[in-house]
Amino acid sequence: MAVKTIEWRGDSVRMIDQRLLPRREVIRVYRDYVGVARAIRTMVIRGAPAIGVAAAMGVALAIRGSSGHRARVRFERAASLLKATRPTAVNLVWAVERMGRVLEASLALDPERLYRRMRAEALAICREDVAANRILGRNGAALLDSPASVLTHCNAGALATAGYGTALGVVRAARQAGKKIRVFADETRPFLQGSRLTAWELQKDRVPVTIVADSMAASLLRAGEVDCVIVGTDRTAANGDVANKIGTYPLAVMAQRHRVPFYVAAPLSSIDLACASGDEIPIECRSPQELTEFAGKQIAPAGVEVFNPAFDITPAELVTAIITERGIAYPPFDESLSKLKRST
Amino acid sequence: MAVKTIEWRGDSVRMIDQRLLPRREVIRVYRDYVGVARAIRTMVIRGAPAIGVAAAMGVALAIRGSSGHRARVRFERAASLLKATRPTAVNLVWAVERMGRVLEASLALDPERLYRRMRAEALAICREDVAANRILGRNGAALLDSPASVLTHCNAGALATAGYGTALGVVRAARQAGKKIRVFADETRPFLQGSRLTAWELQKDRVPVTIVADSMAASLLRAGEVDCVIVGTDRTAANGDVANKIGTYPLAVMAQRHRVPFYVAAPLSSIDLACASGDEIPIECRSPQELTEFAGKQIAPAGVEVFNPAFDITPAELVTAIITERGIAYPPFDESLSKLKRST
Repeated sequence: MAVKTIEWRGDSVRMIDQRLLPRREVIRVYRDYVGVARAIRTMVIRGAPAIGVAAAMGVALAIRGSSGHRARVRFERAASLLKATRPTAVNLVWAVERMGRVLEASLALDPERLYRRMRAEALAICREDVAANRILGRNGAALLDSPASVLTHCNAGALATAGYGTALGVVRAARQAGKKIRVFADETRPFLQGSRLTAWELQKDRVPVTIVADSMAASLLRAGEVDCVIVGTDRTAANGDVANKIGTYPLAVMAQRHRVPFYVAAPLSSIDLACASGDEIPIECRSPQELTEFAGKQIAPAGVEVFNPAFDITPAELVTAIITERGIAYPPFDESLSKLKRST
Repeated sequence: MAVKTIEWRGDSVRMIDQRLLPRREVIRVYRDYVGVARAIRTMVIRGAPAIGVAAAMGVALAIRGSSGHRARVRFERAASLLKATRPTAVNLVWAVERMGRVLEASLALDPERLYRRMRAEALAICREDVAANRILGRNGAALLDSPASVLTHCNAGALATAGYGTALGVVRAARQAGKKIRVFADETRPFLQGSRLTAWELQKDRVPVTIVADSMAASLLRAGEVDCVIVGTDRTAANGDVANKIGTYPLAVMAQRHRVPFYVAAPLSSIDLACASGDEIPIECRSPQELTEFAGKQIAPAGVEVFNPAFDITPAELVTAIITERGIAYPPFDESLSKLKRST
């Protein structure tokens, strides 16, 4: 995909505004971590790996011009703001803590060198994310026949990562391997990541894509139109429970009912062995306006009550396999995930 | 509810334009059956019982000023146009055929008397629908505890019928019986019948209502927030398979998984014993624009492929009970439904 999700340029972070796609391609520029935090919270950028990269870059901006104790204070302030923007995705915490470890090891450097060191680390996180996605994609591609119809939910593509994508990375790698792949994309209410973002980036790559409302995926599965489901994840627990975009759980139930494999594309940065199960993963609830308004227009009666959780938990027993950059984990996941995560 | 879904006034049919609710309450007036057919197809009016009433009124308008052979020719033309507007709901066919039988028995009348006879029959269908809903509502209300949280999908309320509603009729009757009922309404993509219509009419009646995206219902069921699911139906087959708004099938699967009763509120006019099973029910696919545009704005990339079925089939084994105006049918439905339908 030609458009970059996130990019470091000069002393600023640039992101394509995902709220406006596919109608407008607007690049936002952020020069401080407060702006980056706002961009994450308001979903200028979204997708667990992508917001991890954004947070790392935000931290680099935050400590600029400081060193020693002052740098640590600035880091703590930025870290707590950035980590609080979206509670479910673990990549955010993971990336900020990785930046924190580099900072602790580099506190003696002068401000300019410290900034360069932190910037280099943020860029490494960004680069490694793309590299991990490419390997994850190749690992996952081996699971797909040709031709194959893949159903996906939300956007786990180039736009959700530093590039290439996790679930859509598997699709891209399969096509690069010469397989004939078509994609069904759930539109994914309320933010419409599927019809707005997944359809847009697949269309740019000339991958055949068909959009459906979230409620229609069950009919496709029942009709035998889908060979496998592949989704991303915001956090996967040690036992294989998967937090992902709201609607993933019923989709996994329907896939199991119709004997369609349900795969989760999970870079290691999204696997949280500190969470024993999905019960420990916090679920973010977002603003009622996401359901009551559309493009500034009221679509529900004024004052109506809304429940708007952004994620759900898919229990491990519904997951066929978890695809990582270090290989594919099969049940029992408590064993296979910790083995993959701890191997180096 | 103070606003009337459909009404005969003078020699015209009036409908509230359901595409504009809840933002604007606009009444459309139709003086011929072609306009009525267009209103049904474009969803000015929707809901199986409501479009049955609309079609009956359309037939009355169609034969106005004719009698004998000429009336029959006009009827045939109107009947074929009206029946083709929405293929899934059986009420349309049912109402038109009932009008046809009255016509055949009244062909000898002069034009004015024939018109009055047909108009009276259309008004009877309208009146009987409300009456049936009220009894159905009372029958269903007996199934609800107090307090109870009811989850519903789409709009099977006053707006989907000549008044009172089927699924929401059960809610209304339970509240009239003094029960404390709250409702969760799936927003119901793509037409948003839940957030626009169900929320609106329940709010008018001061029933506590919370809207969720379709993909969020599973999280509510899992969290134990829902005591039962009640939906309407566009056509229920002899074996108890239920055609209803797209998304009903996965909802029924999730209800069963979480041991929550799944009730279908089905006036007898929507039960089609001529259909042995759901496999014989035609599923309407609607325009791609319903998914790619919103309020005239493009939300998906131009030219993207769309699959937009308006209904799905819930297999009978997922249905706890079918509530009718003649009593409640329990499995095995092939026996209980034909018994109810044939009793008089």
